[in-house]
Amino acid sequence: MSTALIGLDWGSTHLRAYLFDGGGAVREARALPHGIRQLPAGGFPEAFALAVQGWPALPALACGMVGSRNGWREVPYLDTPTGVERLARQLTRMETPDGRQLHLVPGLRDPQRPDVMRGEETQIAGVLAQQPSTTRLLLPGTHSKWVRLEHGGVAGFATVMTGELYGLLRQHSILGAALPEASDDEAAFRRGVDAARDSGPAGALSRLFSARALMLDGQLDAAAVPDYLSGLLIGEELRMALAAGWADAGISIPMVGEGPLCERYLRAAPVFGLRLERAPEGTTALGLWRIAAAAGLVSPQATVPTS
Amino acid sequence: MSTALIGLDWGSTHLRAYLFDGGGAVREARALPHGIRQLPAGGFPEAFALAVQGWPALPALACGMVGSRNGWREVPYLDTPTGVERLARQLTRMETPDGRQLHLVPGLRDPQRPDVMRGEETQIAGVLAQQPSTTRLLLPGTHSKWVRLEHGGVAGFATVMTGELYGLLRQHSILGAALPEASDDEAAFRRGVDAARDSGPAGALSRLFSARALMLDGQLDAAAVPDYLSGLLIGEELRMALAAGWADAGISIPMVGEGPLCERYLRAAPVFGLRLERAPEGTTALGLWRIAAAAGLVSPQATVPTS
Repeated sequence: MSTALIGLDWGSTHLRAYLFDGGGAVREARALPHGIRQLPAGGFPEAFALAVQGWPALPALACGMVGSRNGWREVPYLDTPTGVERLARQLTRMETPDGRQLHLVPGLRDPQRPDVMRGEETQIAGVLAQQPSTTRLLLPGTHSKWVRLEHGGVAGFATVMTGELYGLLRQHSILGAALPEASDDEAAFRRGVDAARDSGPAGALSRLFSARALMLDGQLDAAAVPDYLSGLLIGEELRMALAAGWADAGISIPMVGEGPLCERYLRAAPVFGLRLERAPEGTTALGLWRIAAAAGLVSPQATVPTS
Repeated sequence: MSTALIGLDWGSTHLRAYLFDGGGAVREARALPHGIRQLPAGGFPEAFALAVQGWPALPALACGMVGSRNGWREVPYLDTPTGVERLARQLTRMETPDGRQLHLVPGLRDPQRPDVMRGEETQIAGVLAQQPSTTRLLLPGTHSKWVRLEHGGVAGFATVMTGELYGLLRQHSILGAALPEASDDEAAFRRGVDAARDSGPAGALSRLFSARALMLDGQLDAAAVPDYLSGLLIGEELRMALAAGWADAGISIPMVGEGPLCERYLRAAPVFGLRLERAPEGTTALGLWRIAAAAGLVSPQATVPTS
């Protein structure tokens, strides 16, 4: 089958490029280090040219921070509730210096909180293509997203800065800055999760200093502090999700994210009576294809592959 | 009246020295930049010599991080519950290179959490000297302390890293790192406090990202983000204190700390139905005198001054 679409997943620190055939299957995938904060000397045009080098002059569709204020072109957010069809109608089209057509997927804005996302809307479209009846979704990461889905679209969402907070505390705080190399300490992680659960409505911020007090007290090895902190912060995210109603203990919630991080969430979830599961791989590429199909960038007879 | 005691308040970033007369009044006070992280070339001995230069060879009593693992000499923590008399019996005595007698006040450890403090135990002794019936006390700061008092001593306490978290988010996070010079924006501070209150049992960490979303949304000036964050974090501390039972809305809680910071807590408290009040100045010096008197370092007929 001939090729039909180029898809780009273009975030702050990564750029991934996909070459799709007419059935929506990924024929070739590339990963470049040129996130929008790490562009080559030639800026966005050079990064784009490197990503698509040697590929046919197909329509291209990009999602992520490339459409942010610091991106190639700022694309306004769409307010929730929003489904794939509406995303597809609101693409921003631009011509690249080498004459290709590039379409940018808008990010989403939840006007109720307010809150914003860029890139995750495409991952969500990919999950919905595989599991249309999903009602809750978790995307763990630097800025975790808890998503509520209704009628095949995003009803609302909330961002939690768990990954960024962990990094700040690990690198710059009195808790983590002077620590030795971290061990991989499952018991310390679990102990942090338990501390978050036991914090009750006060929340785990009220226990944050325990990472230091336990170490000074000889109850926690210095090398185990990072895993304890990780457990405390991931536990706090789960505690919050239940308290705020983002999570529902009665259903299994799919999760899209990096493997080792998702593993941590999977280990913490039972402590809070939550059920999480890994969504199938390739959600971003699938979401790009799905949005392109809805926008008519690829022929309508092309079908969405299901795993 | 002749002089009777030298007191030192020796923390991570500050060194304050007091020369007391026999009635416990401060005859001379000095402030040096030589906290234990900022020692002169001659280390602790030189900093001490500078602090007491020209003063008589009186007994000296020091509190704070000078007795920590990274201090001049490590002094074990005393477990709560602990009152002034027990603190006074557990001083560590050392001789300085210039032949003076220096006594170090132990820090406190709450074995229930666990949690630790160094220096605040002396401020608490000062507050109790002035207001013996105090049952709750707040010491806002980089590491805020909420203290429960019973029978004239410390029954237990909890540390909240509000000030350090604010600094990390302001200097290193996506929320604060690229901001222009902060304005002093009372409305933004209050808005942050309100957001913390409205976060309910989920807690204000669930709203942290709103600092960015509101700015991207045009609802919050970039220059107002620091004050919004400050309100959110101080509000979260007050929310936690109520949820954890550290604070009691039925009583007025004295507060010991730096003026501008205490002002922020005073402004935030009514939003949570809390009553805070500034304790009289000079609590550390008064606490040093009080402990010295209980330890017999000064003559027993010397009385504790009350303000």
